[in-house]
Amino acid sequence: MQLSCPLPKFDFDVITLGHGSGGLLTHRLLQKGVFDILGNEFLGQQHDGASFHMDGKLAFSTDSFVVHPIFFPGGSIGDLAINGTVNDLAMCGAQPQYLSLSFILEEGLKTDEFSQILADIKTAADKAGVKIVTGDTKVVEKGKGDKLFINTSGIGTVHPGAAIHHQHIRPGDRVIISGNIATHGMAIMSVREGLEFETSIISDTVALNHTVYTLVNRFGKGIKFLRDPTRGGVASVLNEVAELTELGVDLVQSRVPVEEQVEAACEMLGLDPLYVANEGIFLAIVSEDIAAPFLQALKEDELGVNAAEIGVVSVNHPRKVIMESRIGGSRVVSYLTGEQLPRIC
Amino acid sequence: MQLSCPLPKFDFDVITLGHGSGGLLTHRLLQKGVFDILGNEFLGQQHDGASFHMDGKLAFSTDSFVVHPIFFPGGSIGDLAINGTVNDLAMCGAQPQYLSLSFILEEGLKTDEFSQILADIKTAADKAGVKIVTGDTKVVEKGKGDKLFINTSGIGTVHPGAAIHHQHIRPGDRVIISGNIATHGMAIMSVREGLEFETSIISDTVALNHTVYTLVNRFGKGIKFLRDPTRGGVASVLNEVAELTELGVDLVQSRVPVEEQVEAACEMLGLDPLYVANEGIFLAIVSEDIAAPFLQALKEDELGVNAAEIGVVSVNHPRKVIMESRIGGSRVVSYLTGEQLPRIC
Repeated sequence: MQLSCPLPKFDFDVITLGHGSGGLLTHRLLQKGVFDILGNEFLGQQHDGASFHMDGKLAFSTDSFVVHPIFFPGGSIGDLAINGTVNDLAMCGAQPQYLSLSFILEEGLKTDEFSQILADIKTAADKAGVKIVTGDTKVVEKGKGDKLFINTSGIGTVHPGAAIHHQHIRPGDRVIISGNIATHGMAIMSVREGLEFETSIISDTVALNHTVYTLVNRFGKGIKFLRDPTRGGVASVLNEVAELTELGVDLVQSRVPVEEQVEAACEMLGLDPLYVANEGIFLAIVSEDIAAPFLQALKEDELGVNAAEIGVVSVNHPRKVIMESRIGGSRVVSYLTGEQLPRIC
Repeated sequence: MQLSCPLPKFDFDVITLGHGSGGLLTHRLLQKGVFDILGNEFLGQQHDGASFHMDGKLAFSTDSFVVHPIFFPGGSIGDLAINGTVNDLAMCGAQPQYLSLSFILEEGLKTDEFSQILADIKTAADKAGVKIVTGDTKVVEKGKGDKLFINTSGIGTVHPGAAIHHQHIRPGDRVIISGNIATHGMAIMSVREGLEFETSIISDTVALNHTVYTLVNRFGKGIKFLRDPTRGGVASVLNEVAELTELGVDLVQSRVPVEEQVEAACEMLGLDPLYVANEGIFLAIVSEDIAAPFLQALKEDELGVNAAEIGVVSVNHPRKVIMESRIGGSRVVSYLTGEQLPRIC
């Protein structure tokens, strides 16, 4: 994804260990490159941390990103690093505001690639409406990392009307998914070495905060639980819910939205879409009485056009997720065991 | 450094890619190990983020840790990851409160080592008085990382009397260092492969927040600038000050405290202690009128017994750090160029 904002111009071609020294080269890397594109009044102070005023209930989240490859159809590790933490905060019912950004660069990383990642970060942060206020850069020797790893942590203000906690989930609550599942995972798999396949699947990576905040603002405590089903997919999130609440979840397979070519790709690789990672959808558990207007509001949002009610919380089979299959049978959907798709985010 | 708090007991010997899957193995890694030792009311919610109330001026900081080796005389990457971010917040005049903790584990990491790191993290966090409230764990393939990398980010409340900003620095302000320099860097070097040397140097890694907060509380806006001179050492911090303020700094070499065996080790390796990393000291720039009581208060603290006034901010030679050497001459102390000691933190 080539972006329109100007790329930072580094006056050297590759990252060396010296760029992590804390000395002159680190200084140059930041001054003549990173700050060109990410610079703002916070980073400009060049302090060890950023300071700002906040009041009330805050949400705080962190994620490290090790996705491979770092560029993939529909995005890059840069987009993912911003959207991932933004979405985690959104799932707490918060509006993300301030992000930290920390790089672990591998010696030999091409500055062309680093520039593009920085541009992607800037674009994603602007779209999400968050400020990158503090950061860190380390460099490890060639062969001790893999191009670059990124950590972002973030802070946001929780909506005063939000009451998102698994303790609020009750039997009869509805399980709603905001869009097609398994898209991000299959986009990554399509460009993995030794596995490349022809497809037009692109990652769904996107910031969900504006969509979610509007819903929280309107439906308040009717929203019991929000989660973006990244690693481990929808199946893992629902198993966590079943375990934490000691209730069951009834899923209806035919209602779970999957794009046709994503489903075909999953079938080809022998993967169940319920376990494949997503980066641009969320799963909501809402009270029965708001389920219909919630779903309608979501479907009117451009990020929710494929939203669907896919299941219900149940007193039957506590701690288990049971899916009614398309052919009428039912089966237990358990936690993902092992690892199908390493380094998906 | 073996610690007294109980080590988490993992029921497996090594980390596999599956432990980063987001599925069953990730769940087990957290439930039967990580949460045993780090668990608290925040992590127990198993949400994507933590929520808490805060009001006023906050500080926010992040650091990734890639120190090699992960265990060294006087500490481990676990101690460093907590103390590093705690100290960054302290340098903003803040009392650190909430930390995030994110691991990038290399496939094959022994759980014995991971256990010890977790115990070190717990002990360091307790000493600093901070809570680990949210986290993340990723696993990369063998050969794509180096045992483990840690990111911590943190939030703290800025002392209402603090006015720490380089813009407040004036000619005549005094440069004070809180303890012996170059200790951490030389402790790491003493155990580097191919370089091991016999010494009893141990890292100075420690949380400075309690010491600093007491000083900020007493001396308020008399403290113009605080920084822990980690990578790049004292020389790099002072060069940043000179550049940001467009003033000069006069250093007196004979006043800079260095432990005897650290100085000997530096000499042996041809390193200048001014460029070697520290993890348990800070550099303060304070107004002339509080310099004496500030120094005295610092020397009465167990973390400040070797504190010394080592220089003064000057209108002469703007943007330059000039050191009067022990033999009476003077020389420019410039930024560290290149990298003497990669992966020191």
